[in-house]
Amino acid sequence: VFEVLKRIRWTRANYSMGITSLLANGVYTSAYPLHDGGIEDDNAEPNDRKLLFEEWASYSVFYKYQPIGLIRTYFGEKVGLYFAWLGVYTQMLIPASIIGVIVFLYGCATVDDNIPSMEICDPRNNITMCPMCDRACSYWKLVTACGTARASHLFDNPATVFFSIFMALWAVLFMEHWKRRQMRLNYVWDLTDYGMDEEDHSRAEYELRVAEKTMRQDKSAPKEEKVKLTCTDRMPAYLTTVVTMGFMICVTFAIAFGVILYRISIKAALHMSTYPAARSNIRATVKTTAAIINLIVIIILDEIYASIARWLTTLEVPKTDKSFEERLIFKTFILKFVNAFTPIVYLAFFRGRLVGRPGNYLYVVGSYRMEECAHAGCLMELCIQLCITMLGKQLIQNNLFEIGIPKLKKLLRKRKSELTSKQEEELNKTLKCYEKDHFLGPFVGISPEYMEMIIQFGMVTLFVASFPLAPLFALLNNIIEIRLDAKKFVKELRRPIAAKAKDIGIWYNLLRGLSKVAVIVNAFVIAFTSDFIPRLVYQYKYSSDGTMHGFVNHTLSYFNVSDFEPGTAPLQPGHLGHDVKVCRYKDYREPPWSSTAYQLSKEFWVILAVRFAFVIVFQNVVMLMSDFVDWLIPDIPKDISLQIHKEKLLMLEYFIKEEQGKRLTAQDNHSHDDCTSPSLDNQSPPQPRSRPIFHARAGW
Amino acid sequence: VFEVLKRIRWTRANYSMGITSLLANGVYTSAYPLHDGGIEDDNAEPNDRKLLFEEWASYSVFYKYQPIGLIRTYFGEKVGLYFAWLGVYTQMLIPASIIGVIVFLYGCATVDDNIPSMEICDPRNNITMCPMCDRACSYWKLVTACGTARASHLFDNPATVFFSIFMALWAVLFMEHWKRRQMRLNYVWDLTDYGMDEEDHSRAEYELRVAEKTMRQDKSAPKEEKVKLTCTDRMPAYLTTVVTMGFMICVTFAIAFGVILYRISIKAALHMSTYPAARSNIRATVKTTAAIINLIVIIILDEIYASIARWLTTLEVPKTDKSFEERLIFKTFILKFVNAFTPIVYLAFFRGRLVGRPGNYLYVVGSYRMEECAHAGCLMELCIQLCITMLGKQLIQNNLFEIGIPKLKKLLRKRKSELTSKQEEELNKTLKCYEKDHFLGPFVGISPEYMEMIIQFGMVTLFVASFPLAPLFALLNNIIEIRLDAKKFVKELRRPIAAKAKDIGIWYNLLRGLSKVAVIVNAFVIAFTSDFIPRLVYQYKYSSDGTMHGFVNHTLSYFNVSDFEPGTAPLQPGHLGHDVKVCRYKDYREPPWSSTAYQLSKEFWVILAVRFAFVIVFQNVVMLMSDFVDWLIPDIPKDISLQIHKEKLLMLEYFIKEEQGKRLTAQDNHSHDDCTSPSLDNQSPPQPRSRPIFHARAGW
Repeated sequence: VFEVLKRIRWTRANYSMGITSLLANGVYTSAYPLHDGGIEDDNAEPNDRKLLFEEWASYSVFYKYQPIGLIRTYFGEKVGLYFAWLGVYTQMLIPASIIGVIVFLYGCATVDDNIPSMEICDPRNNITMCPMCDRACSYWKLVTACGTARASHLFDNPATVFFSIFMALWAVLFMEHWKRRQMRLNYVWDLTDYGMDEEDHSRAEYELRVAEKTMRQDKSAPKEEKVKLTCTDRMPAYLTTVVTMGFMICVTFAIAFGVILYRISIKAALHMSTYPAARSNIRATVKTTAAIINLIVIIILDEIYASIARWLTTLEVPKTDKSFEERLIFKTFILKFVNAFTPIVYLAFFRGRLVGRPGNYLYVVGSYRMEECAHAGCLMELCIQLCITMLGKQLIQNNLFEIGIPKLKKLLRKRKSELTSKQEEELNKTLKCYEKDHFLGPFVGISPEYMEMIIQFGMVTLFVASFPLAPLFALLNNIIEIRLDAKKFVKELRRPIAAKAKDIGIWYNLLRGLSKVAVIVNAFVIAFTSDFIPRLVYQYKYSSDGTMHGFVNHTLSYFNVSDFEPGTAPLQPGHLGHDVKVCRYKDYREPPWSSTAYQLSKEFWVILAVRFAFVIVFQNVVMLMSDFVDWLIPDIPKDISLQIHKEKLLMLEYFIKEEQGKRLTAQDNHSHDDCTSPSLDNQSPPQPRSRPIFHARAGW
Repeated sequence: VFEVLKRIRWTRANYSMGITSLLANGVYTSAYPLHDGGIEDDNAEPNDRKLLFEEWASYSVFYKYQPIGLIRTYFGEKVGLYFAWLGVYTQMLIPASIIGVIVFLYGCATVDDNIPSMEICDPRNNITMCPMCDRACSYWKLVTACGTARASHLFDNPATVFFSIFMALWAVLFMEHWKRRQMRLNYVWDLTDYGMDEEDHSRAEYELRVAEKTMRQDKSAPKEEKVKLTCTDRMPAYLTTVVTMGFMICVTFAIAFGVILYRISIKAALHMSTYPAARSNIRATVKTTAAIINLIVIIILDEIYASIARWLTTLEVPKTDKSFEERLIFKTFILKFVNAFTPIVYLAFFRGRLVGRPGNYLYVVGSYRMEECAHAGCLMELCIQLCITMLGKQLIQNNLFEIGIPKLKKLLRKRKSELTSKQEEELNKTLKCYEKDHFLGPFVGISPEYMEMIIQFGMVTLFVASFPLAPLFALLNNIIEIRLDAKKFVKELRRPIAAKAKDIGIWYNLLRGLSKVAVIVNAFVIAFTSDFIPRLVYQYKYSSDGTMHGFVNHTLSYFNVSDFEPGTAPLQPGHLGHDVKVCRYKDYREPPWSSTAYQLSKEFWVILAVRFAFVIVFQNVVMLMSDFVDWLIPDIPKDISLQIHKEKLLMLEYFIKEEQGKRLTAQDNHSHDDCTSPSLDNQSPPQPRSRPIFHARAGW
């Protein structure tokens, strides 16, 4: 048996005492506001829910603006702001996608003019490379890396430098645009004077704990009791949090490391296999399977981490709903962020750097040699990883978790009520509103929706230097996402309790933080992961004729095969058909005939210095430009600030008039007006900021 | 004949029309509020001015807090905020000075344990250095640089790195502390709801121009006429501004360059002189005179630039007083900043870097060789420059401009009225209040006071890595400055028209900007000007035993004297008593016997890479810590935010009560209340933010 209580309004009195405590005591199983009516039957009278379903929660209207006003009226400000924000974000992704596609097309168009990849593909160069693994692998010709080199150019060309500067400014513009939109919504929704702290309810759990602590059972507000949970009370919970979070992050790292080991061992195994067909596909197979494993791990861990974060936050017993939400978001964000970005960060900054050199390789877990990058840099693999993560995560999470699981849950809930489908259909007609709504999924807040979008924003901004198509993927996903979320809110979920909010709160800070981190991450991706700086240095410092000719030769060091450590030399040295005396590897080291053989060469340090200098210049220039854009665009749109100013004046006049009237009629009550003000000279008329809401608004 | 008008109050009506236009037309010579009374005669009744004179404008109370409330009552919020800000700044300088002195003392204490300076001072090392100038100078022994090397260690030791991190955080703490103090003052002074835009008067000049443009002579408000000055009207003025500012900045650079040339030529001349006494003092003499010349130039140009900025801003005809002030401040800031920091920036980042190398020196203006640094880095000279600039600027500007010139002006004004001193004394007794006040200097705004402090703040934060005593100097100056300014305001100037202000406006942004720039400047000073990074690299990479022994030898390159260009070899090669084949110079270059002789060596690039890496790490770590501190400290003090919240609730109750009362009595007037609100469900009671000023404040 379930009972649905009358709709909860926004007056405070009956919120913090009545229903919540009855729910906690198990008198009622749930309490929720009702939907406006059914959406399936066409002959019912029109209502807001139906209107929303037709005008908003449908893929056929994807090109239209969202009816934000109606959403806010139906679901409350908090949900309204989420969809408004999602709308602005999606809208801002359009120019980013267009520029991204242009940058990608520029890469495609110039791939044939790219001298380094031409040199790699030219069989006349005839460069013999050192083996990629111990014993099993043999020497190989650089010309076989031709395909990868050409593909790399698509993502590693000068246009990506421009694009990552553009995206940093884009992030600032997006922020500014959102601030203005939010201001406008605040004005239209009459929230300019709404303070965040006003709707901050104490949580039932917190009061329970306080009550336990004081051994008193009266559940009055903790403020009046002056009993608070102190640090000592909370210490165990905090310790648990820190330890668990640390453990979870270690688990993520361990799994990422496991995938690396998988990649290394599979590669070695495939090299050893005798089928030439398997060999030729080695790279592609390994990369793709590893990326897919990473993806699956990320998705599974995401779900686990979400519940762990919730459990940890409950342990901490935060005082208010707001504090609970913020702590939960913070924890979830850290865990999900680490989870989503660990493999990407590894690929971008560590892969190929911890290799060692021929004759002195770095080994992990016994005899596994660390991975090298393909000749043309790791950028290509970073791209594949980003592509698979973004596409896969969005497709699977959207389809499976956002459509599949709610439907399954709904089905299960119906099963529980032990009715056959026929009975159900019959009942459905006679079912009351509140009974129908009980079959829908409970509303769990919009934090998961935000979280998904923030992680996506991270993908779009953080590594945009390596994958200019990221904004396009995000745009395509979001166009679907808006309508999917809309459908979910209108059709699948119980109506949420309308919650007021002036802004998107902690999410804005996270966005800001991400866009700041993005600048430095992109600087490092361009400087260290891509070949941009080595090419630049070669062209202006080492090239004999100012062109890129000879660049490939310049990046390869020499290795004397007699310097292999015992047992690591290839088993089939004659694989290429001739005897190999000296092989080449990608690094800047002294040749074997130098007095300091295999030491890092001067070129290495020159390029390193230029790389660091580039990071400094890039970071500071982009930060300066961002600050400039931020300063240039006012936070409050001009028309809105004018309106507010006008209304203030009107309010002022109204107040003065009212005061004058009051003084005339009841002068004895307000005779102490002047004597308490600190200065008679500087006294100004009162200037209240609130708009006269009790006037008709239509007048302005 | 002069007339003093009645005091101007804060009502707007008679401000924008009456007196200003009469003043502009020359009907009155000046208009100002009166002081409360004389301060000299002891038997007069006590008044605010006298109280301020005794309790504030006196050096004997320098250790006391300022009576900010009284200052605000007497001079208005704007002046009150300035003194409150100056107080907070001075207070915050105390811990910075203490740490600075400790860092300096640490340098003093460790000077004898410093291996590099010990090596320089050790005569057994017997290193022959290349000549410091062409022909006239000869080879010299490194041991003669012993004194400079020991002195350098005072300012160039690992503690300065710690100190510049500390000062970056100090700047953030200062900002946060001020924000909180400002909030508290806003609350106490009842300004929480005061909007900046409310007191923004159109300037008479602007209206005149508009009137000229429209060829109409009625001086009504420009908004109603819808005639504005367009870009084309303003273009000549803007062009003049840009050109003049550019020219002025070039003048500053030219003068700085002139001082450099002076230094080079005097040094060469002194070298050529035959008196050994002159020779031994060469360095000290040149450094000090050059710094003093720089100082005098800075002070003179400062005054010129102030009037140029004012003239340029008047040319631009800004629309409102606020816009005028902001433009003026912006221009003055740029000019004064460039003026004050050009020699310092040159010393920090360019001196000794554009030297070239023996045999291939860089020459300017014919045959002048660019300056080198003393062996132990340029930090020492930067110190001297900073020290002289800070001390001299403050002493001269305080004494001469803030005390001397106003007194002189006052004297001149009295002379003009053509009275002998006897007559004057006689008259003084019969003189009316407004006549006495007319002898005082006119109030010119507090921008110059702020400007002086901002430049000082720049000195304290920007180059703190090179001069840890800067906060102490600033502190000593400010303790005097507060009382000096106080005296000036109480005694020497006419009472200013009380101006309301909620915050310190553009100055806060300038402070913020400076403290951001300070982080990167300090990073570069530590990385490039000090020897911190080369020492670190030597110790961990090149040193054979992990100590600093051999560092001096490592930093010196070899030069074969047969490679001197013709005509540049020293005239007295046998000066040291033996024949010199190879001399040493401070740089990281290949030795003459290398295949790439005199090329930059691998060590140079290693150190350069580490320097850049240090800048990146330093900047990002400090920025992260700053953001963290910023986030940690709430902008509004907890007690104030609680108070505001309580008052809001009281106000709310009052409103509801009043509304209910009104509805009962006059329901017909407010019947349209409900139907215009966008959502019936989400309607909340009105929440005006203003405090009920028409209630007695004493109640809370």
